[in-house]
Amino acid sequence: MLEYIDTGYRPGTDEIVAKYRVTPQRGIGFRQACEQIAAESSIGTWTTISTMSPELSERLKPHVFSVDDQSRLIEIAYHPDLFELDSIPEILSSIAGNIFGMKLLSGLRLEDIHFPKRVLRRFEGPRYGIAGIRKLLHVKERPLVGTIVKPKVGLSASQHAQVAYEAWAGGLDIVKDDENLTNQPFNTFKDRIPKTLELRDRAQDETGERKIYMPNITAETEEMLRRAEYVQQHGGEYVMVDILTAGWAALQTVRKHVPQVIHAHRAMHGALTRNKDHGISMLTIAKLARLVGVDQIHIGTVVGKMEGTAAEVTEIEHEMEDALIQPAGKKGHALEQEWGHIKPCFAVASGGLHPGHVHKMLPILGTNIIAQFGGGCHGHPDGTRAGAKAIRQAVDAYLNRVRPETYAETHMELKKALMKWGA
Amino acid sequence: MLEYIDTGYRPGTDEIVAKYRVTPQRGIGFRQACEQIAAESSIGTWTTISTMSPELSERLKPHVFSVDDQSRLIEIAYHPDLFELDSIPEILSSIAGNIFGMKLLSGLRLEDIHFPKRVLRRFEGPRYGIAGIRKLLHVKERPLVGTIVKPKVGLSASQHAQVAYEAWAGGLDIVKDDENLTNQPFNTFKDRIPKTLELRDRAQDETGERKIYMPNITAETEEMLRRAEYVQQHGGEYVMVDILTAGWAALQTVRKHVPQVIHAHRAMHGALTRNKDHGISMLTIAKLARLVGVDQIHIGTVVGKMEGTAAEVTEIEHEMEDALIQPAGKKGHALEQEWGHIKPCFAVASGGLHPGHVHKMLPILGTNIIAQFGGGCHGHPDGTRAGAKAIRQAVDAYLNRVRPETYAETHMELKKALMKWGA
Repeated sequence: MLEYIDTGYRPGTDEIVAKYRVTPQRGIGFRQACEQIAAESSIGTWTTISTMSPELSERLKPHVFSVDDQSRLIEIAYHPDLFELDSIPEILSSIAGNIFGMKLLSGLRLEDIHFPKRVLRRFEGPRYGIAGIRKLLHVKERPLVGTIVKPKVGLSASQHAQVAYEAWAGGLDIVKDDENLTNQPFNTFKDRIPKTLELRDRAQDETGERKIYMPNITAETEEMLRRAEYVQQHGGEYVMVDILTAGWAALQTVRKHVPQVIHAHRAMHGALTRNKDHGISMLTIAKLARLVGVDQIHIGTVVGKMEGTAAEVTEIEHEMEDALIQPAGKKGHALEQEWGHIKPCFAVASGGLHPGHVHKMLPILGTNIIAQFGGGCHGHPDGTRAGAKAIRQAVDAYLNRVRPETYAETHMELKKALMKWGA
Repeated sequence: MLEYIDTGYRPGTDEIVAKYRVTPQRGIGFRQACEQIAAESSIGTWTTISTMSPELSERLKPHVFSVDDQSRLIEIAYHPDLFELDSIPEILSSIAGNIFGMKLLSGLRLEDIHFPKRVLRRFEGPRYGIAGIRKLLHVKERPLVGTIVKPKVGLSASQHAQVAYEAWAGGLDIVKDDENLTNQPFNTFKDRIPKTLELRDRAQDETGERKIYMPNITAETEEMLRRAEYVQQHGGEYVMVDILTAGWAALQTVRKHVPQVIHAHRAMHGALTRNKDHGISMLTIAKLARLVGVDQIHIGTVVGKMEGTAAEVTEIEHEMEDALIQPAGKKGHALEQEWGHIKPCFAVASGGLHPGHVHKMLPILGTNIIAQFGGGCHGHPDGTRAGAKAIRQAVDAYLNRVRPETYAETHMELKKALMKWGA
């Protein structure tokens, strides 16, 4: 058996580093489990084999250079030649592949991946990023606010466009399709796009603000490209992709060909990210998405209907926005990451938000955030437009350092929202 | 709040049915959790909204028609109009999307999906299937046996081809690339394919048997299609795809364009499938893959280095091979499924297998199986060719109803394998 643990080892500047949380099965030693993880994710197998040469193993073997059996966190450095460096699927098949199924583990969680410059060079990252999106919208500093058309599915294309119009007219910047609305019989993609973009134009004319529609193009790869082109033909500057249900191979294809801003929804992430001892962290998924080049990605809300602590969500937000991430040490999971030419990606908070959340969420997530309100917009007692107004009012109150209850005294829409949902 | 639980409801013949295992957070009622899962996976949200009409909710609302708070298994029927029926990403974004992240759950596992005829009609299923592959190989009844070239990565293209040749010459039907070998600098795809297929031809000539090489084409979508075409130009009848790290959108694209047999590797599945209370079952993943149209898929070994009980693995195997699945009731997870025109898919057992496993595995998995031996071939004391011989000998012994130890008395390769790894 080869020995991969070497805590004196310092990773080379072009090595990929993966950080795992390891839970061995009862009766299996921690170090034994680490050795097997390193083997299975690189050059090894479960027995000695005749086809392995000492030269080969010496050159390509992984190094488990950090082992902490208290936190159960380990770090492994992998030689770049082990990978196809511009293929997210291949990188995942190596360091997030078979190892999750190994009998000698009861749990394994990929907490983070460090990408060396050699990997960054192979990817373009976001085409627009935060600065590009703010320029497109003519909004310099305030958080962007949006809605998801509700009900999730069921409205006709015309009804969908009308709900979107009400939201824009009320003051929201963004209207997004729901993650499971793509091309349904009662609301086809072909019908929805021109109708919704036409009302976007009207809302822009009427409000004097730039308005954004994010149509969900998620489908088989070529169909996604056709849908993005169709959106462009009708003047749409944005597309949305369910990146995990569509998958990484298709996302790379979309990034290569689609000229629009790419909004990444993370539907299904909870199946991978929820268990703190197993699966793949949202931090890892978000980093892969920034690397490939989505411009916006859902990271959680801290305060809404979806799980995710403030520490986790803000750690992911920094990883999306910053140019340099310092190693988080024992407090967090993040590895050192210099992002180089890869632009910052806008973090999106979405899931059960209402206007009463604004004063709690913005101090945690900052103003470089896109906040999406679904039920918390259309559920307003006076309807979508009033809901949109209430959201903008809540943001204005926060930016003006006024308590929401105080601001609500002179802003009826916010008042009614706070009465329904609390502050 | 809408009411979705209706245990008197009988699903319509064109409805999609999903079976979940539900674990509410402490303090949350089981039925309340079920209501929210049904809502979030279809037309609902977390609050009352102005844009929902009674007609719409009546027509499209889901029905939780089976609720068992002992096993925590529930079944939900969804109206087909909720979906884009030919898009696996859209179907997953609906019934395997946000619901995994809901705060009021501590765990949620998608156990199975029932596809009505209306969905089956939108997919082609396997192009070859079990019968097509047996015809291609001229092997009527015995299990197919293969190897994965080892070490996983590190050999040059020429060394890779040579190891493959030894395996074929020793008697294996199949040689497969490892899941993390695609296009590495020391072993490029361009170099490996012609070299390996050339030695496949030689092995065919020398043995008089058909031999198969399964090159791993996993990459960005268009690159996968280019690689499949390259394989075809060099006479390769097979391609292999890491279906989960590549993703469903790209797999649908590959199925549409690639004329070869498609071998589906499941690297990363353990991140989704391992936890019995959360994520997505391997049964569900395998069914989606058969629906899209892979011809072969890894399902586990029962006996090797990867987890998976005999009951789970055989349930999946039946789902891959049979034309009709009867509901499993309380004993299993499988829903009723009539597969119609969707051909049977070959089940693949792989992961830590050696010749001593054959007599234990085949009685469980039957002979309609592809058994892949990695370390259990190349780890043979006398090398790859001897390992391949030992594997064929173990299968011959089983088919001739001779105990392996007895057969080994006159078959040296098997004898040495059993001495190294046990029987």
